[in-house]
Amino acid sequence: MGEARSAGGGADVTVIALDGDDTLWHSETHFADAHDTFARVLAPYARDDLDLVARQYATERRNLELFGYGIKGFTLSMIETAIDITEGRISAAEIGTLLELGKAMLAHPVELLPGVAETVEALAGRYRLVLVTKGDLFHQEQKVARSGLADRFERVEIVSEKDERTYRRIAATMGVAPERFLMVGNTVRSDVLPVLAMGGRAVQVPYVVTWDHEVVDHEATFPVLGRLADLPAWLDGQP
Amino acid sequence: MGEARSAGGGADVTVIALDGDDTLWHSETHFADAHDTFARVLAPYARDDLDLVARQYATERRNLELFGYGIKGFTLSMIETAIDITEGRISAAEIGTLLELGKAMLAHPVELLPGVAETVEALAGRYRLVLVTKGDLFHQEQKVARSGLADRFERVEIVSEKDERTYRRIAATMGVAPERFLMVGNTVRSDVLPVLAMGGRAVQVPYVVTWDHEVVDHEATFPVLGRLADLPAWLDGQP
Repeated sequence: MGEARSAGGGADVTVIALDGDDTLWHSETHFADAHDTFARVLAPYARDDLDLVARQYATERRNLELFGYGIKGFTLSMIETAIDITEGRISAAEIGTLLELGKAMLAHPVELLPGVAETVEALAGRYRLVLVTKGDLFHQEQKVARSGLADRFERVEIVSEKDERTYRRIAATMGVAPERFLMVGNTVRSDVLPVLAMGGRAVQVPYVVTWDHEVVDHEATFPVLGRLADLPAWLDGQP
Repeated sequence: MGEARSAGGGADVTVIALDGDDTLWHSETHFADAHDTFARVLAPYARDDLDLVARQYATERRNLELFGYGIKGFTLSMIETAIDITEGRISAAEIGTLLELGKAMLAHPVELLPGVAETVEALAGRYRLVLVTKGDLFHQEQKVARSGLADRFERVEIVSEKDERTYRRIAATMGVAPERFLMVGNTVRSDVLPVLAMGGRAVQVPYVVTWDHEVVDHEATFPVLGRLADLPAWLDGQP
């Protein structure tokens, strides 16, 4: 593989798939902020903040099979947790505050991560780009539109789960062999491991926060970059 | 067009697109049932049922641009309406009942409409089939899987809005000319008019209830069938 190496980390790559949430734009920090507001609303009823957040995570996780990913399900889980924790003593007005919090999250402007706009622009001229993002169809479409990046992508794939099957389908739809398909995203569980499993390539660009649900143990090795803006140089094989 | 007529209503059709909710399986009746439960929970606070349902519809409509379609958004809108109508006097336990109602709707088994399984089976042997359904990605995927019909469809398209652009994209993806593309569904607004607008063909199979939001004034003419099971005979030009 010496030759490929000297030709750059991106030798033979023709399609670059990019994750959306926490790779192109901020997302998890908004959930973390929401947890803070949640803890503040529930403070009069709760023993401690730690318990609150743990209970909220537990409700989210339990509801995943019914709600899937996204802010609407997150908001319903917050309301459910609030009723449970307070044993029904929370007021309608306080539940209304949690509802408004969810709506504010949905209406929040898209904030691109540093260097993303320029990097996507640079990559678009040299690779076929596909955006692969998980979650709520309606909200993800809105975020893609608000990001101003939609035109740079040949395809936008909004999926309910990022597993090997999903990536196989996307690669097949684009008519690209797995070994020429490179996925770039922040989570090992969703953006790296399933792509390696199908024989594709993956680079991780970690985000400052990782959702509990996305944390996995693994023994895979793969490149990790500090920020998306480092990707073009990595592709060209520059250190 | 006499020749095409004698060759059957489906002459030249190669792709048949089928709507999901209220065309293949029951959906709107579950929302109507939910409105009944909603009215029962709110009865101690409300002037009359009519006002309740009108207020709920108004909230749903106002939140559409934030929530999109689907049961999670519907449930959040129920909770919002309940807090508004009761001016915050509703109890957390009653809000919990509305939340459980939403969860029960999401977990509800898929009930196919009469004759649907046999009809889809019969069509699948003769036409390329695509399922075009609007709403929540995660829940719609679950419904498609639970329907037992997934294998009959060449493609499943879960979309956030059924407009002319959506149908153009689907026809293009399948490599079919609009005039060979026939959409079959229960609502004029989403299943018929945008397909006619792109030069495609459409048949309406009305459902017993139509969501207020889907009711439109129009001057288009198109075939209307009593039930999906009438479609094969219509395609063959039999009365």
